[in-house]
Amino acid sequence: MKTPDFQKHPLIPAIIQDSQTLKVLMLGYMNQEAFEETVNNKIVHFFSRSKNRLWKKGESSGHIQEVKKIFFDCDEDTILIQVNQIGDAACHEGYVSCFFRELDNDQFSIVEKKVFNPDTVYKK
Amino acid sequence: MKTPDFQKHPLIPAIIQDSQTLKVLMLGYMNQEAFEETVNNKIVHFFSRSKNRLWKKGESSGHIQEVKKIFFDCDEDTILIQVNQIGDAACHEGYVSCFFRELDNDQFSIVEKKVFNPDTVYKK
Repeated sequence: MKTPDFQKHPLIPAIIQDSQTLKVLMLGYMNQEAFEETVNNKIVHFFSRSKNRLWKKGESSGHIQEVKKIFFDCDEDTILIQVNQIGDAACHEGYVSCFFRELDNDQFSIVEKKVFNPDTVYKK
Repeated sequence: MKTPDFQKHPLIPAIIQDSQTLKVLMLGYMNQEAFEETVNNKIVHFFSRSKNRLWKKGESSGHIQEVKKIFFDCDEDTILIQVNQIGDAACHEGYVSCFFRELDNDQFSIVEKKVFNPDTVYKK
């Protein structure tokens, strides 16, 4: 069976896409542990490169991602996961998608509206 | 202006999505040169890690990708590009999308049909 090859690629990028709207929400990185947690619990987990640990997406905000479908690419080095995004927003800045900036005339400008206030969701 | 930070991240993953179907077609990596070629010529270019050079997607197959929209994420380390896929297929194995394998009962199985024959398209 072809599977993600974590021996060859210890950190594999995982594209997260909304299963209903097909909007691309974010990209994170998975090690074998994160991939297995994701598959077994049907909740997206990443390996956080900044925290250097397993990271359950939404652990602070509650905006977890329920796994609907998992795909894997021809080169065995990228994962695509379709999810149900709890809280309607994936981005820690309050947008539905982390890809809220679009290039327009040599400038990236914000093309989405915030759906939550990060200061409220991420209480200090 | 926020832009992809190629000083900090010399190779940035770029998700390629069909602009009409919103299907995720593939993921490639861009260095600054590939990103500039993509922006300036409106045709997707990557930096090929296997060939170790600038790679115009479709240079062998003719299946180039015309750029429709370019997005950039909150962390400045991932690009999302919506394209018009020439030849209807992105994957060198003959599938519309490189993500043609889906996890089902602990097994990845092929869930797409080939739309071209690689042996014909990539003539030796």
